[in-house]
Amino acid sequence: MRGVVMHGPRDVRVEERADPTIEQPTDAVIRVAAACICGSDLWPYRGTDAVTRPTPMGHEYVGVVERIGDELTGVKVGDFVVGSFFASDNTCEICRAGYQSRCVHAFPMGALGTQAEKLRVPMADGTLVVVPGTPNSKQVRSLLAASDVLGTGWFAAVAAEAGPGKTVAVVGDGAVGLLGVLAADQLGAERIIAMSRHADRQALARRYGATDIVEERGDAGVQRIKELTDGLGAHSVIEAVGTQESMMQAIRATRPGGHVGYVGVSHEVELPGEELFFSGVHLHGGPAPVRRFLPDLIASIMSDELDAGAVFDLTLPLSEAAEGYRAMDERRAVKVLLETENA
Amino acid sequence: MRGVVMHGPRDVRVEERADPTIEQPTDAVIRVAAACICGSDLWPYRGTDAVTRPTPMGHEYVGVVERIGDELTGVKVGDFVVGSFFASDNTCEICRAGYQSRCVHAFPMGALGTQAEKLRVPMADGTLVVVPGTPNSKQVRSLLAASDVLGTGWFAAVAAEAGPGKTVAVVGDGAVGLLGVLAADQLGAERIIAMSRHADRQALARRYGATDIVEERGDAGVQRIKELTDGLGAHSVIEAVGTQESMMQAIRATRPGGHVGYVGVSHEVELPGEELFFSGVHLHGGPAPVRRFLPDLIASIMSDELDAGAVFDLTLPLSEAAEGYRAMDERRAVKVLLETENA
Repeated sequence: MRGVVMHGPRDVRVEERADPTIEQPTDAVIRVAAACICGSDLWPYRGTDAVTRPTPMGHEYVGVVERIGDELTGVKVGDFVVGSFFASDNTCEICRAGYQSRCVHAFPMGALGTQAEKLRVPMADGTLVVVPGTPNSKQVRSLLAASDVLGTGWFAAVAAEAGPGKTVAVVGDGAVGLLGVLAADQLGAERIIAMSRHADRQALARRYGATDIVEERGDAGVQRIKELTDGLGAHSVIEAVGTQESMMQAIRATRPGGHVGYVGVSHEVELPGEELFFSGVHLHGGPAPVRRFLPDLIASIMSDELDAGAVFDLTLPLSEAAEGYRAMDERRAVKVLLETENA
Repeated sequence: MRGVVMHGPRDVRVEERADPTIEQPTDAVIRVAAACICGSDLWPYRGTDAVTRPTPMGHEYVGVVERIGDELTGVKVGDFVVGSFFASDNTCEICRAGYQSRCVHAFPMGALGTQAEKLRVPMADGTLVVVPGTPNSKQVRSLLAASDVLGTGWFAAVAAEAGPGKTVAVVGDGAVGLLGVLAADQLGAERIIAMSRHADRQALARRYGATDIVEERGDAGVQRIKELTDGLGAHSVIEAVGTQESMMQAIRATRPGGHVGYVGVSHEVELPGEELFFSGVHLHGGPAPVRRFLPDLIASIMSDELDAGAVFDLTLPLSEAAEGYRAMDERRAVKVLLETENA
C-alpha cells in the first residue's frame, strides 16, 4: 500500500509500505477513506521535534473495516468507522472514567501512521465507533474531524467548562481552536471571543459561533479580554497552541475561579508556580480523550448538526501529501484532508 | 495595644502598636480572642521571604466585635465573629462565584497583623461571619482553625474533588494537610492516604480519618501511592506544602483525569508543561476562598462535629509569640495558638 513517510524536516514522501495485517485477535484492518495532516505534524516537519528515522505519519482516520481479528464482537467487515489518535480498550478504570487517551493499554495511532491506504487498529472493539449507515462525502469530512480536531476542541471546551452564561475565550485559530469555538457554541456559551488576526479564520470562527474577535496577542490580548469582561477575565479559556506565550495568555485571560482547557501539545512550557497559584484558575487538559465524545459527535454529524468538516480548506489526494504539509507549514491552509483511492 | 511585629528573620517581638480605629464606615474593630501562627509565617521567619521593615504579623483571628462603622448591618457589637485571611465584600461577581479570596476588593488581613489584641476588619459585613451563641473554649480553637487552616484544607479537598468512592492522598503533614485529611473524611472519601514521617502527625491524621500512612517522599512516595491504587494513582491529591518537590509529588501521584487541589503557597515552583500536559490531571488551588466555607464550618463546629482545634498542639499567651515561632520553626509544634487577655 501507499503511505506518507517523513524522512526528515520538510522531507515528506509518499511511498510503498507493507500492508497491515491482523497481529492480535483484537485488531481490525481498515481501508482508510480519508486521513489528514495535524498541526502537531508540523513540529517534526519544522524540525522542532527530531525525526531520527523514516517515520510513517498521521494519527487521524476514518474508513471501512476490511478484516477483523477473531475476538472482535463490536465491529464487522464493511462497517464505516471512526477512531481517535489513541487506541484504547475502553474497559479499564481510566477509560470508564472518560480518559481513554490515557487508557492503561493506550496505544498511539501515530506510531502506525494513518496517512496511508490501510491501517491496523489495535483493540478495535474499544477504539473504533461504528457510524450508523453510510456517510455522504460532507459527513465523511466531519467524521474525520471528529477523529482528532473536533474531539480535541470539544474536550478543551468541556475542560474549560464552557456552558450557558459563560464567556469563553479561545487562544489559537488553528483547526482545534476553531472547533473549540464550535464546541463552546454547541455547549451553550453566552459569548465566545476568538483570538485571531487572519480574516479567513475569523470568518470561520464567526460562522462557528464566535461573538467577538480579538486580534491582539500576549499581554495586549489579555488586556482586551479583560476590557470585554468587566475587568474580570473570561470564565472559560480554551488554549489550542501549546507555547509558553499561549499558555500564559490563556491563564492570564481567565478570571479567578475560572477554567482553562488546554490542548495545544506543550512545547518548552514552564508554568510559574507562584503566578499560577495566585491566579486561582482551574487548569485541565492534555491529549484529548476523543473516544469519550465520539458517539455523540458521530450522532450530531450524521444528523447534519455539526459541519466540523469546514475546517478542511484544502483537499488533496494522498499522493500529494508533501504539498499538503507545505501548505499548512506556510499557513496557506488551516487543515489539509488527504483522500485515498478508497474514498 | 500589644501585637506581634517581625523585625527580621528569627526576630519576632511583642510590642506596643497603635489601637485600630474605624477608618471606613464598613469597618469593624474586634477584640481578638485568639490568633495563631501560620506555616506561611515561617517563610519570612526563615528569611525565604524578605522582611524589609518591621512587619505586624498574623492573618488568622476570632474575636468579639467592639465597634462598628455606620454602614454595617450584618454584625453588631458583642458578636463573636470569624473571618478569613482576606477581607472581601462578598457581593462582587467573583465573591458570588465562591472565590472571595480573589474578591475585586480583596484586602489581605496579614497587612494589618492579626496577632494582636485588637484588629480592624475591612468590609466587615462581607468579611465576618457571626457565630451563633457563645462558643466554649474548645469551640473557639476550632473556629480559629476555620479562619485559615481548616478552611484551606477544606478548599484543597473540594478542589481535589474528594468524595465518596475516591482515594485521596495528602502531601504535607502540617496543619493544612492534616485538616485536608479531616475534610476528605467529612466529604466521604473512601480511602485517605496521609504522607507523613512524624509519629505525632501520623496519629492525628489517623484520628482525622486517614486509612493509610506513606512515609516515603518524592518518587518513592509516588511509587507507594501507585502501589496502593492498582498502579493508577490517587483520584484526588491534596498538596499542602508549596515546593517544587511537593507539587511534582502531588501531580505524579494523581491518576490521569484525577484532581490535584494545591494550597501550599508556591515558592520557586516551575511546572514542566509537557509533563503536566501528558499527566492529564486537573489542577486547581491558590489562596483558599475560606469565606465560602465559613458558614458551614461554623455550624459543624458549634454542633461539635468538627474538632479542628486539635491541630493546635501548643498554646501560648500572645506575649510569648517568639517562642511560638521558634517551636514551629523547629517542628516542635504543628500549630501554635496565641491567646490574648481578651480570651
